[in-house]
Amino acid sequence: MTIAQRRSVRADLAAFLDPRSIVPAEDAAPYERGYRYGAGRAACVVRPGAIDELRAVVDYCVRNDVRFVVQGANTGLVGASNPDDRGDQLLVNLDRLAGVEDIDPLDRSAVVLAGTRLSKVNEAARVHGLCFPIDLGADPTIGGMIATNTGGSRMLRFGDVRDNLLGLEVVLADTGASAISNLSGLRKDNSGLDWKHLFVGTGGTFGVVTRARVKLHTLPTRTTSALIVPQTQEDIPQIVFLLEAGLGDLLHACEGMSRNAMRAAFRHNSSLRSPFADDIPPYALLVEVGTSLPEGIVADLDAALADVLAPAFSDTAPLIKDVLVGRSEDFWAIRHSISDGVARSGLVIAFDISVKRPELPAFRAAATRMIARDFPMLDVYDFGHCGDGGDHFNLVWSDPERTPEAERRPVIDAVRRQLYDLVVRDFGGTFSAEHGVGPSNQEFYDRYTPEAQRMLSSLLKEGLDAHGLIGNIRL
Amino acid sequence: MTIAQRRSVRADLAAFLDPRSIVPAEDAAPYERGYRYGAGRAACVVRPGAIDELRAVVDYCVRNDVRFVVQGANTGLVGASNPDDRGDQLLVNLDRLAGVEDIDPLDRSAVVLAGTRLSKVNEAARVHGLCFPIDLGADPTIGGMIATNTGGSRMLRFGDVRDNLLGLEVVLADTGASAISNLSGLRKDNSGLDWKHLFVGTGGTFGVVTRARVKLHTLPTRTTSALIVPQTQEDIPQIVFLLEAGLGDLLHACEGMSRNAMRAAFRHNSSLRSPFADDIPPYALLVEVGTSLPEGIVADLDAALADVLAPAFSDTAPLIKDVLVGRSEDFWAIRHSISDGVARSGLVIAFDISVKRPELPAFRAAATRMIARDFPMLDVYDFGHCGDGGDHFNLVWSDPERTPEAERRPVIDAVRRQLYDLVVRDFGGTFSAEHGVGPSNQEFYDRYTPEAQRMLSSLLKEGLDAHGLIGNIRL
Repeated sequence: MTIAQRRSVRADLAAFLDPRSIVPAEDAAPYERGYRYGAGRAACVVRPGAIDELRAVVDYCVRNDVRFVVQGANTGLVGASNPDDRGDQLLVNLDRLAGVEDIDPLDRSAVVLAGTRLSKVNEAARVHGLCFPIDLGADPTIGGMIATNTGGSRMLRFGDVRDNLLGLEVVLADTGASAISNLSGLRKDNSGLDWKHLFVGTGGTFGVVTRARVKLHTLPTRTTSALIVPQTQEDIPQIVFLLEAGLGDLLHACEGMSRNAMRAAFRHNSSLRSPFADDIPPYALLVEVGTSLPEGIVADLDAALADVLAPAFSDTAPLIKDVLVGRSEDFWAIRHSISDGVARSGLVIAFDISVKRPELPAFRAAATRMIARDFPMLDVYDFGHCGDGGDHFNLVWSDPERTPEAERRPVIDAVRRQLYDLVVRDFGGTFSAEHGVGPSNQEFYDRYTPEAQRMLSSLLKEGLDAHGLIGNIRL
Repeated sequence: MTIAQRRSVRADLAAFLDPRSIVPAEDAAPYERGYRYGAGRAACVVRPGAIDELRAVVDYCVRNDVRFVVQGANTGLVGASNPDDRGDQLLVNLDRLAGVEDIDPLDRSAVVLAGTRLSKVNEAARVHGLCFPIDLGADPTIGGMIATNTGGSRMLRFGDVRDNLLGLEVVLADTGASAISNLSGLRKDNSGLDWKHLFVGTGGTFGVVTRARVKLHTLPTRTTSALIVPQTQEDIPQIVFLLEAGLGDLLHACEGMSRNAMRAAFRHNSSLRSPFADDIPPYALLVEVGTSLPEGIVADLDAALADVLAPAFSDTAPLIKDVLVGRSEDFWAIRHSISDGVARSGLVIAFDISVKRPELPAFRAAATRMIARDFPMLDVYDFGHCGDGGDHFNLVWSDPERTPEAERRPVIDAVRRQLYDLVVRDFGGTFSAEHGVGPSNQEFYDRYTPEAQRMLSSLLKEGLDAHGLIGNIRL
């Protein structure tokens, strides 16, 4: 698209949009740049202030064959909410379509506009003693969370976004930008295709989600946490089993942190203090137990956790080396500092993978051996979710400057290929557990996605966006 | 299809199927007849003994343009698993494709063949202290449960079939009958379209489900139940709120039973005894509380339930008239006898509807008024799921013989139309909460389904079964 064409898109939009809905060209850069990676160039950035305005924008795009990308809080990690570098995409940011429209405490649900931040949903729910329980480091919009179907740290207890979604409103890329909606809040409805699932975890490629009805949960009133040091990696599935069997729904989270990941957190967040008496162990589980019930019904959580873990200290075949109890906030501060700590430890090659839950230790062992053997310049800084099989198997190149820039790319390409092959082909896992699909992992989608899934996605894309106007991924 | 053509289908199949896989024509009737309603005529009934044999059957159908219907335990209530009366459909019964292939206690999941009965999955899980927690009156197959996405009595606590499904294997109606599969058991996988949802709750119309990986839960070790008599219908949502807020995941079920429904149970099951001191109240809630945790962690359940209900007895604005505690089995025996009791009370006009949960009392009141006004010959015998908004709003015509047969049909047609209009148009509810869509409610699917949902279903049907060979519903 030439500069003249870009000007024409802007002028066209100015003819029917509120001037406040069009971002001046000089202010566009933050929208065009990814949260952590990548940047592109948009023909124009718009921020519709109402759903009718959004529909007018989509209708304009359909009638004029203008490609567009939808963006929420722009906290995605795979580039799916940024324009590509061709400069012909309209960037549609939804952060002005924000607000919690209807909280129904009796129904434990709320209708939320797509541009609403997670934190704002929780602020509104808290007034009623409720919460939307997806726990994330970032503060994305509900629309973005639906696009990636993120799970977060407490998925083990509360499920992912899909599990907490009762209905959607979606604007389609057809002439007139028709809106389809199923927000009536039915919990049991099997009168045919439950179409909302087509728009969950598909990166917005089939339509623009504008509203959602989400489930709310009772806010936990008590939590406690512990750091568990397993005897060996291989003991972790058995420890998770003990915790689940012994604690049921009191078990809120079971996260895993490698020594390198914890070290990075301590190194880069000076307010943290290592809770370990001696060296940082090779691996630790962060376990959270919680409840919303009073002590008259559910006993002291520390005691419950201690009881459940007791058999794991057996003399004959101990599963656990050590358990540290302490303030939940302190342990979660470590967990939540890892991502930044790792980012500041060198050049990061990030992975967001998952395997079948009990196979996580075997995968970690195989992957770590492979890195040591074939990529000795890289270190493993992984952390993840032992409760659901997800692992942010991040690699850090601590001194990339010793390798000429031209030689780095092939290394990065090779390690991505080899590691994803290990995950997907040897372990039956996935190359994207909760970050979704975007330009940064499109090639792996193309490499690993079974023909059947592609065929089904194509059917839908052909029917819903035959000209490929929406987004920059190809499912 | 002529008799000669039916003979030819049978002869064709005999050429490549194990003789044990073909049901002799004289034994076909039980497969052709519905569990409670309707009957059709099949060109031939086959019971494949292996998935390869099933694929050969589907491939034959595709190559020869033969329509087919898939059947599990034949316990469906909307006719979707029976052939129509044209006599040209092949009936494919999957009950020989049964077995639990892989129980993984560490992962709390199992791979199950589609023809496996619910009871058999639970038998296999029980050995490991686990269960597949969908609680139903009937004993359907897993494949049938996926087709209807049934919820059952404990959905409030454990979710519906979809919530407990990790992956599927599906045979498609293409040449070669290709199988697609995603059974690797990932809990966090957002690498594009999660296609299994297309085959859940869609009555098998897009393909033949052959295997599923399901989630298993810890078997509850303690349960207790109570019958709660609300002051008024309108108090029920507030009672459900109190129970949910006060008991969290200890609350397993909150079912509703009308006086007529309870009376029908007592009348037709002589082993039941009414637990009520005086008359049967107009409505009662059957509440179940349960846990798998020991008393050291979760207190005595009866005491917990009493504590939580205490505020509902307040002098100023009591929500509850009476609470009866007793043996769980006795209360559930009443609940589980209702369906048969109602069936034996006269001519039943059955409804399986749901509305937004807090609106159930308002719907029941409006519907009951409408029946009394316009259909005085009918009585309301409803029972349902106050915890999820579902209601089996069944009507009984106790003396239909007083009305000439030719005059009954118009009454039945009118009441169905009026009642569904009330549910769907006035209350935003659904005409099928958990029984799915079949020939017996196709006309209501056609009447109420939004154009968008039909368009999305058609896209998929066109792509997956363009010749409309599978089943006898049109989504």
